[in-house]
Amino acid sequence: MKKPLILVTNDDSIVAPGIRFLISVMKEIGEVIVVAPDSPQSAMGHAITINNTLHLDKVNLDAEIEHEYSCSGTPVDCVKMAVHEILKRKPDLCVSGVNHGSNSSINVIYSGTMSAAVEAGIEGIPAIGFSHLDYSWNTNFEPLRSYVKSIVSAVLKNGLPEGVVLNVNFPKVDASEIQGVKICRQAKAMWVEEFDKRTNPQGKEYFWLTGEFVNKDLGEDTDEWALRQNYISVVPVQFDLTAHHAISTLNSWKL
Amino acid sequence: MKKPLILVTNDDSIVAPGIRFLISVMKEIGEVIVVAPDSPQSAMGHAITINNTLHLDKVNLDAEIEHEYSCSGTPVDCVKMAVHEILKRKPDLCVSGVNHGSNSSINVIYSGTMSAAVEAGIEGIPAIGFSHLDYSWNTNFEPLRSYVKSIVSAVLKNGLPEGVVLNVNFPKVDASEIQGVKICRQAKAMWVEEFDKRTNPQGKEYFWLTGEFVNKDLGEDTDEWALRQNYISVVPVQFDLTAHHAISTLNSWKL
Repeated sequence: MKKPLILVTNDDSIVAPGIRFLISVMKEIGEVIVVAPDSPQSAMGHAITINNTLHLDKVNLDAEIEHEYSCSGTPVDCVKMAVHEILKRKPDLCVSGVNHGSNSSINVIYSGTMSAAVEAGIEGIPAIGFSHLDYSWNTNFEPLRSYVKSIVSAVLKNGLPEGVVLNVNFPKVDASEIQGVKICRQAKAMWVEEFDKRTNPQGKEYFWLTGEFVNKDLGEDTDEWALRQNYISVVPVQFDLTAHHAISTLNSWKL
Repeated sequence: MKKPLILVTNDDSIVAPGIRFLISVMKEIGEVIVVAPDSPQSAMGHAITINNTLHLDKVNLDAEIEHEYSCSGTPVDCVKMAVHEILKRKPDLCVSGVNHGSNSSINVIYSGTMSAAVEAGIEGIPAIGFSHLDYSWNTNFEPLRSYVKSIVSAVLKNGLPEGVVLNVNFPKVDASEIQGVKICRQAKAMWVEEFDKRTNPQGKEYFWLTGEFVNKDLGEDTDEWALRQNYISVVPVQFDLTAHHAISTLNSWKL
């Protein structure tokens, strides 16, 4: 059987340990192409670069990979570049991550990692975003290898429902404490922001965005619940944003 | 009755004719506060600024408005700034736009205009994004005044279903040709990209992202269909991205 062609990207940049780990796992499964940002692109959401130029550099961080590129754009730009500029055929799978930090719950909407997966989904490519609740650059990803392989293999074997990509988050616990994998819905949680106001050397005010993650969703079918119970959470994510259930209500308004 | 407090933002920057028009309409309806980007932020999606500082400048483009600010961040940053730094109480409504260009169909996911509205929705604020299919800076928005007022009034009167914001697009036709307002689903269309490859004066390659919008969705309940028939399209947009219908399929995988 022909090896699957797997596109690997992320938002923490091409040198991040998370993507290097993910590349090493994908090499066991298929033919790997890497197109990832040349600098950190966290929280870029589904941004694309339309008012600026894009640069693509062939790199060789892994001697076993023929096609490895760093790109000046966002994670979504990387996927578009890979599919429409670099590759001759559509990849069989796109994996994004492993992100250094959580993309559970509402974070999915801000996440560059997940936006890359969503963009691949829009292109009709089965796609998975992986994120680790541990923000540390030096996390030991190795214990997650078997879980990543099992989830990727299941997607390659079964395909994904149309219009759906997967958002996988790993709990911040030792491998021995992981309880397994849970399919979840995204918890209804949000960030309550606070701006850290400071004064620059010229006396002008500026701000840093900070915030606290607040989860009032007590459901036991959410990603937040699963992760707190030491499960790996898997949320199916859709990119048709239509709230179909609201259409009849709005029709009653007689606009 | 107390006047509603209305937050106005956009992604084309605070000086764009589209937001100046929207501000002029909102002044007829409520107390207006403006927090909008100091430079164009099109296609920024749901990006937020976490690796850079944010600046906020009080401006006075409209003598009748007390609170008008330009912000160095993305449209989503503007909403967060307004709600968590500037305002003492939550606004009764957030309107974003009028965007110079379409945000119908899949464009909703790339759109800074819509991401601002979505962010307001996450904060629990009824929110509407307005976009005009005419990209021209000099479009005459005036004929749209009565439609904007009627949609805003309906939202203020009825509220919006939980977790839903509105994506309103105006067709590029003379006011006399507008057929009315249609509640729609987002068409299943996408961009097929092409990268325009060029060489800079130093001999290095660079790219511009270009593309063609391709709609193979023939449904007559879509925003694309409505707009082609000269209707104003209104799509209810949700920000819980869970593909609930896919959960049972994934559960059968035994991961």
